[in-house]
Amino acid sequence: MKEQLKELLENCMDHASTEELEVLTDILRGFHKKQNKINSSYIGGLLHMERTMDDKMCELTVPLTPLLNNSLGIVHGGMTATIIDSAMGTLANSLLPEGFGAVTTQLNIHYLSVGTGDYLQCKAHIDHKGTKSMVLSADVHRSDGKKIAQATGSFFIIKKK
Amino acid sequence: MKEQLKELLENCMDHASTEELEVLTDILRGFHKKQNKINSSYIGGLLHMERTMDDKMCELTVPLTPLLNNSLGIVHGGMTATIIDSAMGTLANSLLPEGFGAVTTQLNIHYLSVGTGDYLQCKAHIDHKGTKSMVLSADVHRSDGKKIAQATGSFFIIKKK
Amino acid sequence: MKEQLKELLENCMDHASTEELEVLTDILRGFHKKQNKINSSYIGGLLHMERTMDDKMCELTVPLTPLLNNSLGIVHGGMTATIIDSAMGTLANSLLPEGFGAVTTQLNIHYLSVGTGDYLQCKAHIDHKGTKSMVLSADVHRSDGKKIAQATGSFFIIKKK
Amino acid sequence: MKEQLKELLENCMDHASTEELEVLTDILRGFHKKQNKINSSYIGGLLHMERTMDDKMCELTVPLTPLLNNSLGIVHGGMTATIIDSAMGTLANSLLPEGFGAVTTQLNIHYLSVGTGDYLQCKAHIDHKGTKSMVLSADVHRSDGKKIAQATGSFFIIKKK
Repeated sequence: MKEQLKELLENCMDHASTEELEVLTDILRGFHKKQNKINSSYIGGLLHMERTMDDKMCELTVPLTPLLNNSLGIVHGGMTATIIDSAMGTLANSLLPEGFGAVTTQLNIHYLSVGTGDYLQCKAHIDHKGTKSMVLSADVHRSDGKKIAQATGSFFIIKKK
Repeated sequence: MKEQLKELLENCMDHASTEELEVLTDILRGFHKKQNKINSSYIGGLLHMERTMDDKMCELTVPLTPLLNNSLGIVHGGMTATIIDSAMGTLANSLLPEGFGAVTTQLNIHYLSVGTGDYLQCKAHIDHKGTKSMVLSADVHRSDGKKIAQATGSFFIIKKK
Repeated sequence: MKEQLKELLENCMDHASTEELEVLTDILRGFHKKQNKINSSYIGGLLHMERTMDDKMCELTVPLTPLLNNSLGIVHGGMTATIIDSAMGTLANSLLPEGFGAVTTQLNIHYLSVGTGDYLQCKAHIDHKGTKSMVLSADVHRSDGKKIAQATGSFFIIKKK
Repeated sequence: MKEQLKELLENCMDHASTEELEVLTDILRGFHKKQNKINSSYIGGLLHMERTMDDKMCELTVPLTPLLNNSLGIVHGGMTATIIDSAMGTLANSLLPEGFGAVTTQLNIHYLSVGTGDYLQCKAHIDHKGTKSMVLSADVHRSDGKKIAQATGSFFIIKKK
């Protein structure tokens, strides 16, 4: 399997553009972060998510690279959704006692501007905490300060098995 | 840069579990698909998206691997959102005359069940086509036939530069 | 109290335009429908909601009068929301065993066209029925057949006291 | 027509309960407010909406009466939606230059608690103002201070005819 992987990498590097080599470097570095438990998911690693958190809010920062772009060359709406759901989910889970988890049941995103610049920053807040469900909101800003998305999400509180 | 990449791969393979080696293989194969223009974005490649389309609907199929999971070990809500936004966006853009594009302005997703099994399949449909905007809907089913998500999205029609 | 009401009606009729007299007639007739249990809520009566239902869908028809208009002279988005929530809620509740009820936890509406013509017709369907929650969808058409709104809603299943 | 109206009122008052007479009084008083242009729509009048506004927010207060209840005896989700859409729409329109109007294209509401008590108070804010569209948010609190709903809405900016 390792020989096959080395060959695969050779194929990827062969005729690769500078952009492609940079994206590939980012991908492998991100994968390694997940291996080293710096990130708790492959996606978090590959997106190089960095987190700041307290009991009121969770902030995620993600550097912008071509890896996050759709085929039109702008940040994929699904990547923005991924950052939002990560920030909300992380905060929701942090607010629950041990043995309980929060799962997204509904997510509503308004896309306001094109995602460009150096990085995206997402801040999630808790709006409502009930006994069975929670509602959170999040804003996403780009590095020049412009808000590119805002969202609300509903989460079910479940007992972990 | 290529030497650095080889070294990075060595680091990733070192002490890697079987799951990690498989994910790494999927990642590099997916990256190569984007390079070979089999997929039009890195995300589409890494998720190994396959597409069927006519003028009424767009269907995307994505195999499930640990790459798509969140830190709880189930499909990340953001990955489901990415598949939905890709299917809707592809269909929306295909319905417009040359020189025009469709950008997501709002996305609302209901998460209904846990994403497990072999693959996810997303079908997007057009619900409303106006002169300035469109509304699309999408359902996501897993390989055992259970619906795991349903969504609606709004798209602005823009003139491409 | 009855004398006061008669005086109030006189005040309302005084200098009233034909439109105003017609709206007033509709209002009192609608109120009387609720009194006679033809409608189960004042709102249902005042909007002269008529219902067709089976175990798959609930259809509500509402005649359009100036009573439903906003200050711009077109159907108020809140009235469309009221018809949608009524249709979804009625269907959701009809699908539950005795002793259980369904309450709206989230409602997402896309407004597609201006509500004009003789009446609005709303059809609600069930999309997902879980043990704790349900998701329903609804379309609203006007009398000339054009779709003016589409919506999805989440409902919690609660035990009635 | 006026004779018919008087007879209708007699029918409504006949065998009416105290609650019904109170609701009827509220309805006629609200109708009269619209006639006297204290409210700009029949709905606003019937709900006895009162407004405070500056260039940053619009606040609407609505007293709670059985008129706003659904058949379960709690505030109808559509009534909460009506208050929200009114507050957002009023603020959106107030922010536009003469000759332009704002129409709701999408409304997403999270219902958090049961609407009870003396009144509901809705505060709408502007979140994003683009050249073609706006996004607003709103919270609804009941008289004991508990938040019962929160919402976001998208509005198209149109040229009035």
